[in-house]
Amino acid sequence: MADTTRTGTETSAYRQPQVDVGEMRRLLDGRYAEVRDLVRDNLTEYAGVLDEAETMSRPEFRERVKDLLLVMAGTGQTGLGFPEEYGGGGDLGASIAAFETLAFGDLSVLVKVGVQFGLFGGAILMLGSKRHHDAYLEDLVAGRLLGCFAMTESGHGSNVQALGTTAAYDPQADEFVITTPDDPSRKDYIGNAAQHADVAVVFAQLEVDGKGHGVHAFVVPLRRDGEVLAGIRVEDDGLKMGLNGVDNGRLWFDGVRIPRNNLLNRFADVTDDGRYESPIANPDKRFFTMLGTLVQGRVSVGGAGINAAKVALTLAVRYGVRRRQFNATSQDEEELLLDYGLHQRRLFPLLAENYALHFAQETLALRTHDVFSVESGEDEDEQARRELESRAAGTKALGTWHATRTIQECREACGGAAYLSVNRFAALKADTDVFTTFEGDNHVLLQLVAKGLLTDYASDFEDLDQLGMVRFVAEQALETLIERTAAHKLLEAIKDVLPGADDEWDQEAGLLDPNYQLAMLRFREEHTISGVARRLKRGIDEGLNPGEVFSRAQDHVLASARAHVERLVLEAFVAKTADLPDGDLKVALNLLCDLYALSTIEKDRAWFMEHGRLRASRSKAITREVNDLCRKIRPLAVDLVDAYGVPPALLRSPDLLG
Amino acid sequence: MADTTRTGTETSAYRQPQVDVGEMRRLLDGRYAEVRDLVRDNLTEYAGVLDEAETMSRPEFRERVKDLLLVMAGTGQTGLGFPEEYGGGGDLGASIAAFETLAFGDLSVLVKVGVQFGLFGGAILMLGSKRHHDAYLEDLVAGRLLGCFAMTESGHGSNVQALGTTAAYDPQADEFVITTPDDPSRKDYIGNAAQHADVAVVFAQLEVDGKGHGVHAFVVPLRRDGEVLAGIRVEDDGLKMGLNGVDNGRLWFDGVRIPRNNLLNRFADVTDDGRYESPIANPDKRFFTMLGTLVQGRVSVGGAGINAAKVALTLAVRYGVRRRQFNATSQDEEELLLDYGLHQRRLFPLLAENYALHFAQETLALRTHDVFSVESGEDEDEQARRELESRAAGTKALGTWHATRTIQECREACGGAAYLSVNRFAALKADTDVFTTFEGDNHVLLQLVAKGLLTDYASDFEDLDQLGMVRFVAEQALETLIERTAAHKLLEAIKDVLPGADDEWDQEAGLLDPNYQLAMLRFREEHTISGVARRLKRGIDEGLNPGEVFSRAQDHVLASARAHVERLVLEAFVAKTADLPDGDLKVALNLLCDLYALSTIEKDRAWFMEHGRLRASRSKAITREVNDLCRKIRPLAVDLVDAYGVPPALLRSPDLLG
Repeated sequence: MADTTRTGTETSAYRQPQVDVGEMRRLLDGRYAEVRDLVRDNLTEYAGVLDEAETMSRPEFRERVKDLLLVMAGTGQTGLGFPEEYGGGGDLGASIAAFETLAFGDLSVLVKVGVQFGLFGGAILMLGSKRHHDAYLEDLVAGRLLGCFAMTESGHGSNVQALGTTAAYDPQADEFVITTPDDPSRKDYIGNAAQHADVAVVFAQLEVDGKGHGVHAFVVPLRRDGEVLAGIRVEDDGLKMGLNGVDNGRLWFDGVRIPRNNLLNRFADVTDDGRYESPIANPDKRFFTMLGTLVQGRVSVGGAGINAAKVALTLAVRYGVRRRQFNATSQDEEELLLDYGLHQRRLFPLLAENYALHFAQETLALRTHDVFSVESGEDEDEQARRELESRAAGTKALGTWHATRTIQECREACGGAAYLSVNRFAALKADTDVFTTFEGDNHVLLQLVAKGLLTDYASDFEDLDQLGMVRFVAEQALETLIERTAAHKLLEAIKDVLPGADDEWDQEAGLLDPNYQLAMLRFREEHTISGVARRLKRGIDEGLNPGEVFSRAQDHVLASARAHVERLVLEAFVAKTADLPDGDLKVALNLLCDLYALSTIEKDRAWFMEHGRLRASRSKAITREVNDLCRKIRPLAVDLVDAYGVPPALLRSPDLLG
Repeated sequence: MADTTRTGTETSAYRQPQVDVGEMRRLLDGRYAEVRDLVRDNLTEYAGVLDEAETMSRPEFRERVKDLLLVMAGTGQTGLGFPEEYGGGGDLGASIAAFETLAFGDLSVLVKVGVQFGLFGGAILMLGSKRHHDAYLEDLVAGRLLGCFAMTESGHGSNVQALGTTAAYDPQADEFVITTPDDPSRKDYIGNAAQHADVAVVFAQLEVDGKGHGVHAFVVPLRRDGEVLAGIRVEDDGLKMGLNGVDNGRLWFDGVRIPRNNLLNRFADVTDDGRYESPIANPDKRFFTMLGTLVQGRVSVGGAGINAAKVALTLAVRYGVRRRQFNATSQDEEELLLDYGLHQRRLFPLLAENYALHFAQETLALRTHDVFSVESGEDEDEQARRELESRAAGTKALGTWHATRTIQECREACGGAAYLSVNRFAALKADTDVFTTFEGDNHVLLQLVAKGLLTDYASDFEDLDQLGMVRFVAEQALETLIERTAAHKLLEAIKDVLPGADDEWDQEAGLLDPNYQLAMLRFREEHTISGVARRLKRGIDEGLNPGEVFSRAQDHVLASARAHVERLVLEAFVAKTADLPDGDLKVALNLLCDLYALSTIEKDRAWFMEHGRLRASRSKAITREVNDLCRKIRPLAVDLVDAYGVPPALLRSPDLLG
């Protein structure tokens, strides 16, 4: 664990810090400050798109968003993750940073960019081989070839292993035949499909010689000169809650023939003589390995959520130091909203959570960069990839829920003015709402995290579905099972930090000691993971059917995953602040870090009391400390949101900012 | 307290009930079933408006909504609350029932109706005298005279006592001169103002002979034959997050002259010889008395929120018994969403809360009807009115937050399909979002509730602002103070039910005993109210300034108000079920009532543990019981939402309902 210089006592001399906005912004922008500034400049230049989203008709706005995608492609900001030989920047981390920053602006543009370069481009890059790279990458990076990512079907969004679309190999013609067998198997909600995509990467059940090999990805041409090709039916998904600059649509394939070479064949192929072959024997493992290479999509969406929330926080905090209502401290002048204790309580824990998630996202993005920037060696480091996938899933879930909750609270904190579209919240709310669902439903993602924790990312178990996981649990002795979970690693770490009898240990450290805070979150994680293992085991032993066992333990499964991710988030934040030189910046960040840690513990303080890790008096003390931290953050709040560096042109909101 | 026939033991023989949908619907519809069915029929006939909200341009849609308002007026459903001699129905309760039911349909229509008949019509009816009734009521009930309610200003939404618009009496001309002194004093967000209102009820600071008398209401003509009159400037509020069928706008008055008779003079008047007079001497009291007569607006909005949430619950529950995803209990068939424990956990406590709020709203609406249907005698029963206002404020706050949260959770539970506008959630979310803000910001309303609790609705204190409340507290001995709060009444009731030593009492009753559940909520209420009193007192005694004292105690203030309202809600639910004859309907409702009570306690179980009213083991038992109740409700869930009687044509959602 990172060393810290904090005293860990609540009574130590405290001097209110000042925040240097520029310095804080440099810290937040991190390694990719230059890329982020490029995107800020581009967004500012085209800030008019925020108005156009409201004034243009839907067809016009879709064209406008497509044009902006091409403009952004021209600046190089959207191709940063592709190899330089195809016109890209060769820097995945930079690509993620650019995408995150796009979230300050119109989110149809962000999602359109994500579809073209992240989903479509990412699939070609990650699932294809050199022939596909040579055929498509240069054009797609330049925006000359637009594509879509046709995975989700009306009937299957979360359980994509059960997709219905088929790709049967016809050895006579040496072609695949793509077929939509029924309406639930139509591709649905596919961005870029309704109008702009020339080609689709279609996920379909591969059949060779009558035998199924599971879901694989195929390049399927959709349009030529804007005309939909024969055998393909396209339907527009119509008006959506938000993101109406993106042309989502449905696709049906009626025996569409594509050359054998159009199979994206990095992980499996059909040979010249018509045999299926793959270096990965287990079909489940093969499928999840393919999916795993697309993890950057989740990393990007989580980052986008966290950054969209920054816009809302900036508006709410700045409004709070301008808007007055009711006389509270004076008969002559009404009180600023942000001087009300409740208003601080509503906004500052979310502000602290946003900072925490920002640094957790930074850690995740850098790891993603590192894992995918290593040439070869992918098999050796399978566990690292699994852990990365889990971290991405967890950060995406927490980051996007944070966005939904934060934007909502900030909207309410800005009152009726925030209901007018010009004041930005209408689009923020509507456009981000689907973030909790797409790129993996958040609940399903947390189950994925929990599965990893229960099996300690063992590769043999990564392909288990819920039934399989429960059966796996049932087959083992309880000790072995607990030993196999990620929980056992945590236990020693907790005991090292906080020894002492069970009912005493919570008294031994100050609330502001990060070691105490981390130990609390680690204890909860360890306890919930092994609790889930015990519950699953007990259910099976009692003769319940595995589905029922899983259903009954499901809330504990989710709680363990959340506990795990919150611990990772706090670790990232603590590590970040510990590395800083002493000074005001560090003091200010420690206030936020303490507020994140303690408000996280406070939210779940019932659990800690139920499990003997918090006494009533100390629980109340945590609440007092959270209030105290809010008061200390009050004078810094404006600087803390200004450090996000949301370009003023993107804030709009004349009624809120005055 | 209502007697109950429940056994109160968890181990009693339990037989799964069946729900007779028709019977449950009759129970929910209550006294005004006929009125509700009339509105259902009207909504079904014009269900096309839900599509038109998406396909029409904003100007077209505004006209469409206005036309529907006239159609609804023609059926009599919108005039139920007005006296029969002016073409109304003479039944306030029926009027509220009709309005609530409108929330199943397009919410622009609902709000347009609310503006015209609730706000504008209500102001004329409640604040005006016979001459105003004669002049306006018949035309406004028929929809021939459209009006708006011009209270809110850009600078003042919550603290309306501090409005900036002035109405100076000119004795020479015997007229009032209405003036907007500066931009923060422009009227803002005023529904019907941008296009359709012929007249406005304008709230302005009355000045007579240079002396201010506080805010009063005036009838000000705005348009003749659609043309805005001289001296008035109108600006459109433009696109909003939702409710775009309502023409919200801003108004500036540049010395607009109106006859003296246009003062709505029920509570104050300017005499023929130019003197100000009012039967209520205290200007604060006068103002809050005026506002108090408009309480039906809050009652209506709370009810609308609760009913809009029913649409979301209907969709999510029905989708949950149709949509399958992942194999859980079987290798051959995927599992229904609603058979997952987590899915039940996400939806059923909200379903139970919705039923609870429905009955609390029914209680509130009937009391509103009773209080306002008594001719004369208004002064004698001032305390009853204060309690009604408090109940309306609290139910509005909880009902509209419930709507926001429920619609969001149901949206997420329906996955990506719920993001398409045709599937109803887009409009539900966007249109209801402002419910938490308009007709009183929810946080401000809960403060109002708390003030009532602290002063026990004493009329001398009802006009206190925050500063005044803190000073009032400071002036009393602690015992007197606690004695004066509403809390002291609760204490005996708790002790009667649950005697025994403090650390024992939580063990003495079964979790499903409503007396136990109510005692828990009463204890929390009593403790939080007296806690707030103590905190305020202590802060003043320690020499802090009153604003700071209030700011620091504000989260406790809100918590006490919430505790109070949740207790009222549970009482209403328990009373409703207790009155039922034995049978399946009662058993089913008791499941929901228990789930509401226990999930309410569970949410705040940390507080109960901190205050010695729940042991860790019992706290965990409550969570288990909540899960168990969810499993018992699972087979009833579809019937329980079908009993809401949301007309099928209003659900739309082909992708969700299949």
